[in-house]
Amino acid sequence: AQRDIEVEIVPCPDGITVPLEPLLDAIDERTLLVPVSHVIFKSAYLQDAAAIVEKAHRVGALVVLDTYQSCGALPIDVKALDVDFLIGGSVKWLCGGPGVAYLYVRPDLRDQLRPKLTGWMAHQRPFAFEPEMDYSASAYRFLNGTPNVPGLFAARSGYQVVACVGVDAIRQRSLMLTQRIIDLADEYGFEIKTPRQAERRGGTVTVNPPDAQAVSRRMLEREIMIDFRPGAGIRVAPHFYNTLDDIDYAMAEMKAIVDKPSLESA
Amino acid sequence: AQRDIEVEIVPCPDGITVPLEPLLDAIDERTLLVPVSHVIFKSAYLQDAAAIVEKAHRVGALVVLDTYQSCGALPIDVKALDVDFLIGGSVKWLCGGPGVAYLYVRPDLRDQLRPKLTGWMAHQRPFAFEPEMDYSASAYRFLNGTPNVPGLFAARSGYQVVACVGVDAIRQRSLMLTQRIIDLADEYGFEIKTPRQAERRGGTVTVNPPDAQAVSRRMLEREIMIDFRPGAGIRVAPHFYNTLDDIDYAMAEMKAIVDKPSLESA
Repeated sequence: AQRDIEVEIVPCPDGITVPLEPLLDAIDERTLLVPVSHVIFKSAYLQDAAAIVEKAHRVGALVVLDTYQSCGALPIDVKALDVDFLIGGSVKWLCGGPGVAYLYVRPDLRDQLRPKLTGWMAHQRPFAFEPEMDYSASAYRFLNGTPNVPGLFAARSGYQVVACVGVDAIRQRSLMLTQRIIDLADEYGFEIKTPRQAERRGGTVTVNPPDAQAVSRRMLEREIMIDFRPGAGIRVAPHFYNTLDDIDYAMAEMKAIVDKPSLESA
Repeated sequence: AQRDIEVEIVPCPDGITVPLEPLLDAIDERTLLVPVSHVIFKSAYLQDAAAIVEKAHRVGALVVLDTYQSCGALPIDVKALDVDFLIGGSVKWLCGGPGVAYLYVRPDLRDQLRPKLTGWMAHQRPFAFEPEMDYSASAYRFLNGTPNVPGLFAARSGYQVVACVGVDAIRQRSLMLTQRIIDLADEYGFEIKTPRQAERRGGTVTVNPPDAQAVSRRMLEREIMIDFRPGAGIRVAPHFYNTLDDIDYAMAEMKAIVDKPSLESA
């Protein structure tokens, strides 16, 4: 929130979803920018990006779609979405590790924008080392300083693996694995903090057993790599390399830890 | 330059130095921030950081000292300088490669400042994932998002080497090597775009022979790793691992290329 900018936050009443109608209603003629997460990190709620972009464009607003929690786990078509800006990073589903982020800008918007945060690599002639900025006519105009070469090398291998497997195949497998997590959580009587509908679900399932934080610690001790997210629960995040057996094992361990907490602290 | 902020640029009339008096005169009661390069990248002019900080503090301004071109090549004592902010990166004299930068903030200023550019790692409780920012009380308050782990690993090895050699020893050797470049440039009749006084000279010497850009290309072909900087000349940047023989060889090759340019383009 900077001066002269009013920030409106659309609430998440159930701790899982951001209901679409209140979100669309919050976008009006006074709106400049709509920054939204494509997938909400706590619940894996997958927002309806197309509806958000459509409403924003109808009232003259621009959308920044943050795909940190979606890119590499489900297909995204920037042209079909007609999204204005798309950002994200390599540390999640793209398997590229930390230190690398990406930005997509709608090509017809590019020339109208002058980045506030900039650096010498954004210059039309960076190696002329001119003190006055003359922004590159290409996407380089949004670069900053010297590129992070070690991070880019690390990231590239991850992108190559994801591209080789294919995001459509990853999405199909992901929905199968996350459905299994939901089925087992239901069977074991654990609360689920993730949408049950496949079309509104990202790549993770947040399961909220009793005493979830302590349970998550016990799971990590057993090298079951999950995350605990306060106010949500245990986020189980299978990727293309996981199997149904992995899911069954992780959920069975969760159940065993919940059933016998005293044995686990020994 | 943002709205409500007037930027005053102090000129460099000789293409080598930023004369101290005009710079100090430009710092007055209306000045908020004095961002200066400790060493000017084209000429290696070493600014008098202590005098700049003294004048800035006398009129209530803060100094951002950019040590990208100095840190690792010459000793810097942030406490003795009483500098407010010090920034830099690993790609130059620290031998750490690209992707890593550092920021020093005067400890008593730290709590008064709220960074405009921020991220989840700046939060007092980052792993609580709270949507409202509560800045860390420590230096972490100036961090952004997920740290660049591959870049940090690469950088650390460089820092360890520099610390092991010692910056005082590096400075001594650097002055000897850069003096030799100046002596040979004088002997060969090449223009020097770097201060001759040791106390005002950083770690490089910019030599400007006739047709410097073409000469620099020929030197690079011979794997003499120098830089050409437009409007300045050929920047020769020896570090602690270089010898006087390296300097003699590089300068003799520069001389040979200048003397026989036609043979070189064959």
